[in-house]
Amino acid sequence: MPRYRFTVEYDGSAYNGFQAQAGQPTVQGAIEAAITAFCGQTVRIAAAGRTDTGVHATGQTCHVDLDKAWPTSTVMNALNAHLMKEAVAVLDCAAVSDDWHARFTANGRKYLYRILNRPGRPALDRGRVWHVRKPLDAEAMHAAAQALIGLHDFTTFRDAACQSASPLKTLDVARVARVGEEVHLVFEARSFLHRQVRSMAGSLVEVGLGKWTPADLVAALAAADRARCGPVAPSDGLYLTGVTYEAEA
Amino acid sequence: MPRYRFTVEYDGSAYNGFQAQAGQPTVQGAIEAAITAFCGQTVRIAAAGRTDTGVHATGQTCHVDLDKAWPTSTVMNALNAHLMKEAVAVLDCAAVSDDWHARFTANGRKYLYRILNRPGRPALDRGRVWHVRKPLDAEAMHAAAQALIGLHDFTTFRDAACQSASPLKTLDVARVARVGEEVHLVFEARSFLHRQVRSMAGSLVEVGLGKWTPADLVAALAAADRARCGPVAPSDGLYLTGVTYEAEA
Repeated sequence: MPRYRFTVEYDGSAYNGFQAQAGQPTVQGAIEAAITAFCGQTVRIAAAGRTDTGVHATGQTCHVDLDKAWPTSTVMNALNAHLMKEAVAVLDCAAVSDDWHARFTANGRKYLYRILNRPGRPALDRGRVWHVRKPLDAEAMHAAAQALIGLHDFTTFRDAACQSASPLKTLDVARVARVGEEVHLVFEARSFLHRQVRSMAGSLVEVGLGKWTPADLVAALAAADRARCGPVAPSDGLYLTGVTYEAEA
Repeated sequence: MPRYRFTVEYDGSAYNGFQAQAGQPTVQGAIEAAITAFCGQTVRIAAAGRTDTGVHATGQTCHVDLDKAWPTSTVMNALNAHLMKEAVAVLDCAAVSDDWHARFTANGRKYLYRILNRPGRPALDRGRVWHVRKPLDAEAMHAAAQALIGLHDFTTFRDAACQSASPLKTLDVARVARVGEEVHLVFEARSFLHRQVRSMAGSLVEVGLGKWTPADLVAALAAADRARCGPVAPSDGLYLTGVTYEAEA
């Protein structure tokens, strides 16, 4: 069966998360319904990351097995036509071998966390940024974030309900920079624990507000204690922006 | 009566334009209702630009006369509290003298036109960008746009229903640049004719697609004939980003 890989953008505020749930609007459900409308097949797609309710994506990567070998442009255009009323768009489509897997052959995920840092609340980006009124020291956040890089027990920064067997993860990139009225946090790793990015972002905001010193962040990480995490940042500002795969390195 | 100036951001897709109309959701109507909810006064606000249905703003400037001298932070916070369910936000507020007028003392308006230029349709920026699938030559658009700068009869680029007494306007800035997957067009002038920015943007896209030569654009301008305008760009991509005033020069 031909396997198709495709990149998806979505506005997570319209959905109860990525993963399909009976009776709930989900990104996966919307895409699978579009595939059925296109070719009549009932399918289950795979995806690199199962984003939470309210979390967005500009570069989620999925795959699906179809019965027929369609031109990739036909698959992309048909899915977009059937997704017209959804806040989901297919950005590209390619044929891949059947040992390529959107989730299991991924070796890198990249997230962006957007903070709108100004007194006035967002009108245009409501639901798409975290609004922090008080001025953030983005340079202090960036400097502190470097302590998170590398192999650590990230228990402090994972949700209590996280189902990963191990709290050990290697964080490859943690960058914080001011971009106009926004502060952008970029994180890259092979994989992340549940709510790890929002937990790290919320704690780094404590540093940016001057409530935490960089040493407080280091101590929170070292404690490996969920109770030491700062307030978890809301889903609004989080974007899965890209996924990398072994063959592409 | 104390006069307050304030900057407003809004998502125009939620409103039938800026200007108040009985029985229609408008930006002006939403702001005036918030003012009444705040202080009980029935007011009429003034604004630098009466944007069309679907047109957005990140820097619309307004003023209102209130009976009482409130702290400006109180005005801003109260309006934002009463605008919480609206796609309108007040970004700042200042007390101004009663000869300052949001519309009549403005001496410059700045617009941004955003084009999403990629094959895949927008999911996150639906209604906030014009989606042009075919690749645009932004450099050719920028070069051609320079012919629009200066004092011209802009009849070709104004709506047939434009109520300005004269079609003569001076365009100060016309810049086109690629920004990632987007092409941004920036226009600055003392004032604009009705639909002038969308008319210029649509015609410049003809250049960017290679359908028009730069000479075609020059000839269209010189013809001073509405029939020579390219397809008018949709409201989705248009933003009023800033207003300047005499005292600020």
